[in-house]
Amino acid sequence: MTSIAMIGAAAERLKGHARVTPLLSSPFLDEIAGRRVLVKAECLQHTGSFKFRGGWSAVSALPEEARKRGVIAYSSGNHAQGVAAAAKAHGVPAVIVMPADAPRLKIQNTRDLGAEVVLYDRAGGESREAVGAQYAEARGLTLIKPYDEPQVIAGQGTTGLEIAEQAAAEGVTQADVLVNCGGGGLSSGIALALEARAPGLRVRTVEPESFDDVARSLAAGEICRNPSQSGSICDAILTPQPGEITFPILSRLCGPGLVISEEEAMRAMALAFLRLKIVLEPGGAASLAAALFHGGQIEGEAVIAVATGGNVDAELFREALSRYA
Amino acid sequence: MTSIAMIGAAAERLKGHARVTPLLSSPFLDEIAGRRVLVKAECLQHTGSFKFRGGWSAVSALPEEARKRGVIAYSSGNHAQGVAAAAKAHGVPAVIVMPADAPRLKIQNTRDLGAEVVLYDRAGGESREAVGAQYAEARGLTLIKPYDEPQVIAGQGTTGLEIAEQAAAEGVTQADVLVNCGGGGLSSGIALALEARAPGLRVRTVEPESFDDVARSLAAGEICRNPSQSGSICDAILTPQPGEITFPILSRLCGPGLVISEEEAMRAMALAFLRLKIVLEPGGAASLAAALFHGGQIEGEAVIAVATGGNVDAELFREALSRYA
Repeated sequence: MTSIAMIGAAAERLKGHARVTPLLSSPFLDEIAGRRVLVKAECLQHTGSFKFRGGWSAVSALPEEARKRGVIAYSSGNHAQGVAAAAKAHGVPAVIVMPADAPRLKIQNTRDLGAEVVLYDRAGGESREAVGAQYAEARGLTLIKPYDEPQVIAGQGTTGLEIAEQAAAEGVTQADVLVNCGGGGLSSGIALALEARAPGLRVRTVEPESFDDVARSLAAGEICRNPSQSGSICDAILTPQPGEITFPILSRLCGPGLVISEEEAMRAMALAFLRLKIVLEPGGAASLAAALFHGGQIEGEAVIAVATGGNVDAELFREALSRYA
Repeated sequence: MTSIAMIGAAAERLKGHARVTPLLSSPFLDEIAGRRVLVKAECLQHTGSFKFRGGWSAVSALPEEARKRGVIAYSSGNHAQGVAAAAKAHGVPAVIVMPADAPRLKIQNTRDLGAEVVLYDRAGGESREAVGAQYAEARGLTLIKPYDEPQVIAGQGTTGLEIAEQAAAEGVTQADVLVNCGGGGLSSGIALALEARAPGLRVRTVEPESFDDVARSLAAGEICRNPSQSGSICDAILTPQPGEITFPILSRLCGPGLVISEEEAMRAMALAFLRLKIVLEPGGAASLAAALFHGGQIEGEAVIAVATGGNVDAELFREALSRYA
């Protein structure tokens, strides 16, 4: 189980390798939200998303023998790039299992980072877990799961250590921390870090409409599944259900889940372009969308939105600008 | 005259107000450039450009009496926003003189930041200096020049203090530091800071073709003017000639000036989108363009590019993505 000690140890291993991303703000966003908005810009992390933290944490925690055989990961794209980059830096071979309908940019980047990419048919019902397990067994690879893996959660949790420190420097000690949520690795990691280091900051998960398995699970007190597993522009945060390891943490520490529309995500992307000068993908902008457009469901004079990633195809980004900038 | 002591004092006044912007990188950019590329992301500074530093430095250095009467600035946009935001935070009234053909976003932002905006006809030959001086006299305003002003140079120079520290942390102590250059306030401030704190780092100015007054002035050893004063997408760095105060500093400390094409600036914007997840305006991307596409004129195993600003209209940004991303 991931503990604050494991998160602290991960932070030591990540030091000098992962970027300490800035906490950005704009008076224009504060005005829209009706409160201070602080944006943790994880899109500026290596490989364009927070996933580099978990990838580095997991790979760097492997024993020498396992490193030689290599690692495998299944991912809609950001975890893929995070693991690929971390593996390359450690000289560890990496196989990445990706859905065939992931953004082209993510597939290409993963290949360019030196990983072997295996595509599977997400829409047709193929299970990435099954595909991943096959490869792992055949080659003796260590499977690095995207979220239900204690060292991955510990790595993502380092984001929470930084938020605790940076928010305090801004004078913010009581606030909701909005986190885009797929399987819950980042949300649970941040929640554990904040529990120990900034107990006045509370994680709220954010998901797109029709893929709100975490919000429904939190409300029900038990794991609920999404009826569908693809078909949202917020591809980075689509998962069938919250993780077995992550859900109990979320359930214990998080407030009610927030849900935003795809249109709101696109508007948040345009506002992040205009006001923060950062590039967000739809799933990376959901938290900002919740901060800006769902203020009635948020408590406190300030809100912190974790902008989790920026790996968006140019065409979709242009569409967001064309419609809302 | 601006000294390292003045830059240090400006850094003290800016502390907790200006952002310490990150030094970003991507293996994909390193590969294009054929050397390590470190990007100082000043587009993430408050108001979307480094100009906030100079604005804050100048306003915070004013005596109480002058603050009450107010300040005036003339600017193609980024200096305007920097001064407007700094003045507002200090409770000081601000009048900003802007060219009528500046990007709409910059004019609107300056108004939204609480400043009174006065437009003048740049293409028709009106002098912003003359317009600015009239207002300053009539209302007793203090004119904050965009570059030929020691406290502004000191503020911009704080960027150099951060570069010295951040580059050293990356193990880079010998490199060219490429700086987008209009009147030379940022370039001269950084050059002074590096002279004192990182003498192995050398400033190289970067300008767009047909507006290369600084490069020609450096080559000639005396101030040369541009034949034209508008008509480039790199609007942020168009000035008639290097400053009277800044040029002697540039002449003493900088290497030969670099010149890039508008197309190269647009390609650099697209690559910054793809690889760094930051938004750059053309004049803010010129330094990255020089790092990526003019490597033959650069020395060393690493290069540092100061990405000076991100205040670009959405339409132009979409065009850059459509053509090059």
